[in-house]
Amino acid sequence: VETSLDTSRSQAEALDRADPLAPFRERFVIADPRLVYLDGNSLGRLPRATTQRLARVVADEWGAELIRAWDGWLDLPVRIGDLLATTLLGARPDEVILADSTTVNFHRLATAALDAQPDRRAIVTDRANFPTDRYTLEGIAEARGLEIRWLEARPNVVPDGGPGPADVSGALDEQVALVTLCHVDYRSAAIADMAAVNAAAHDAGALTLWDCCHSVGVIPIELDRSGADLAVGCTYKYLNAGPGAPAFLYVRRELQDRLRNPIQGWFGQRDQFAMGPSYEPRAGIAGWLVGTPPMLGLAAVDEGVRLVAEAGIGAIREKSIALTEYAIDLFDAWLSGAGFRLGSPRDAARRGAHVSVHRADADQLTRSLIAVGVVPDFRPPDGIRLGLSPLTTRFADVWDGLTRLRELAA
Amino acid sequence: VETSLDTSRSQAEALDRADPLAPFRERFVIADPRLVYLDGNSLGRLPRATTQRLARVVADEWGAELIRAWDGWLDLPVRIGDLLATTLLGARPDEVILADSTTVNFHRLATAALDAQPDRRAIVTDRANFPTDRYTLEGIAEARGLEIRWLEARPNVVPDGGPGPADVSGALDEQVALVTLCHVDYRSAAIADMAAVNAAAHDAGALTLWDCCHSVGVIPIELDRSGADLAVGCTYKYLNAGPGAPAFLYVRRELQDRLRNPIQGWFGQRDQFAMGPSYEPRAGIAGWLVGTPPMLGLAAVDEGVRLVAEAGIGAIREKSIALTEYAIDLFDAWLSGAGFRLGSPRDAARRGAHVSVHRADADQLTRSLIAVGVVPDFRPPDGIRLGLSPLTTRFADVWDGLTRLRELAA
Repeated sequence: VETSLDTSRSQAEALDRADPLAPFRERFVIADPRLVYLDGNSLGRLPRATTQRLARVVADEWGAELIRAWDGWLDLPVRIGDLLATTLLGARPDEVILADSTTVNFHRLATAALDAQPDRRAIVTDRANFPTDRYTLEGIAEARGLEIRWLEARPNVVPDGGPGPADVSGALDEQVALVTLCHVDYRSAAIADMAAVNAAAHDAGALTLWDCCHSVGVIPIELDRSGADLAVGCTYKYLNAGPGAPAFLYVRRELQDRLRNPIQGWFGQRDQFAMGPSYEPRAGIAGWLVGTPPMLGLAAVDEGVRLVAEAGIGAIREKSIALTEYAIDLFDAWLSGAGFRLGSPRDAARRGAHVSVHRADADQLTRSLIAVGVVPDFRPPDGIRLGLSPLTTRFADVWDGLTRLRELAA
Repeated sequence: VETSLDTSRSQAEALDRADPLAPFRERFVIADPRLVYLDGNSLGRLPRATTQRLARVVADEWGAELIRAWDGWLDLPVRIGDLLATTLLGARPDEVILADSTTVNFHRLATAALDAQPDRRAIVTDRANFPTDRYTLEGIAEARGLEIRWLEARPNVVPDGGPGPADVSGALDEQVALVTLCHVDYRSAAIADMAAVNAAAHDAGALTLWDCCHSVGVIPIELDRSGADLAVGCTYKYLNAGPGAPAFLYVRRELQDRLRNPIQGWFGQRDQFAMGPSYEPRAGIAGWLVGTPPMLGLAAVDEGVRLVAEAGIGAIREKSIALTEYAIDLFDAWLSGAGFRLGSPRDAARRGAHVSVHRADADQLTRSLIAVGVVPDFRPPDGIRLGLSPLTTRFADVWDGLTRLRELAA
């Protein structure tokens, strides 16, 4: 039985009415109700609670308590880490902290993994990885004379999914210290097969490092169960923690004694305020802290993680799949005949929370969309990325955005 | 002619009335007018303008403009860097950025200096340096098998000043890649002889890296004129940028092509949003950016630097000297006979903006002071550090604080 798609706006509105997560949109600041914001995967919206929390941190904590506020601030990187670990990352307490940027954390964990295996001289990774990961690895490999083994080119056009064991196995041998991939591809949204890649890497004696920027807060992640060794991810996308908010860093508990934080700073020091003569790392994940934690950003991460955890990652993933399915249905109805190609997997199980559509004039189309109040983002050379953030994006937004794109592309 | 000190509170009030910087205190949030806050060198007070700026960044930029706000955010790390460079650091435009934490920046610059001189295998530094610097250096030295040459123990009791060429010259030879010191000692406030140390280091072919955490915003710094190669410093002390605000990083212009940022991230990449296949650093100091800049913290740094620059570093230094002189006068009158010793230089030209006083029960005394509304900080083993921040600390605060200390110590 073939069902014909109802492409009316009223159908989108009906989907929104039936959406159990719809009330969560009211927990966010919606400054311009007409704006069709399809870029929550670049910068998530502002939670109302965050506005209040930041005002309190600024006025009541910094402004009034001054230095005494550190009593309440000191353990925040670990406390938020525990919440994030246990609600969204499939990790245990004392495996995750919030600290620094994704790039600095990625650099630290890659360095630590390589330092722990000095006889292994190769890194396996993918040219599809987010640029900052590739650039960081290039720098490390050059400084240490290591080999980077790039995965064989995988299909870029309508990929079935992200890298799996078949993609990495040819590159694995006893020379490989580290396998590092993005959990969700920043362009196609293809999901890597985390558990199978971990197993393949471990069979070869290598460690794994996952970049979860495009999955954290929108896809259930099972770092522990999947056997992931190390992971990082940002908080300003689906965790809605604001521009440049601190990133997370995960080190599997069993590795915490074996690996060494390559940037030894005073917040990683045991008995920090004794200011003793030599570095002795704090036990557990706190030993991966470095400098003074950024309190404004951390407070925003705390609110963002709480809100996502409250909605529940299961319900979020369910709505996320419905949103991307709906977007692909409208794509098929309106855009596939207009010279566009779909750049994201059709299999929902292998697809993250955004949908990429491609046409040669994508750059110009993106600018035209922004001019008419629809904000996606452009990814060179020819991709328009539609980010559908389940707590704030409505089915009507998908309809409105694709309707305008269809009009502009005609 | 011996003048007798007027130790009355009315004399302190008279000094405040004559203080040309007194009106600046009204530019800050003073939540509890009775609080005697003598810890602005750990966490500076909240500027009123910062409260407003942060509310705007949160509501109007993040909340309303969303991703489009990056148009105005992207160059902020360099713009604030230029302002800081030219008003407070004695540096040129395109030599300073705001990024990451002091520790991460210190690690990056030390690493870059060592990478540039692989044949030199020693670092000269001081056990008096702030712990995070020492810990970071230890980690680097251990990972690379380098030698750390600690300066011969300098006098800890009433030091004449921070390290000078006589202290470092014995440690310098053709093996030394890097000399790194704190500009102002975090315990004694002794000022190092930056120009003379730079000259001695350069004579030996070494580079210099200065930690300016306890001098930036309160002492005129002449990075360029003094011949400093590299510097870092935090912004949450005398620049009043809030807890964990991003730090600054300085690379002398002539070294920017020779040194290489060891953490290659996407914000240091030329044509960043082309997301090209290989890392190619941005020209100038922007090539030292790494990950996504923390916008809330940066906005607070912007306000903090503007306020200090508006007051003028000359007037700030003048008041700072008057405050510390006054504190030492009261110390001599009230505390030196009560078992205390002074831990800061008596020569104002060699003394930064805080005053350290020592007695065996300093830890307990600090807690008692806090209990009666006076907030200094304790530094092990026996120091009470009185931080006098010229834009917010009044002569009456010095009088009140030392009066309470005298009472408690009796």
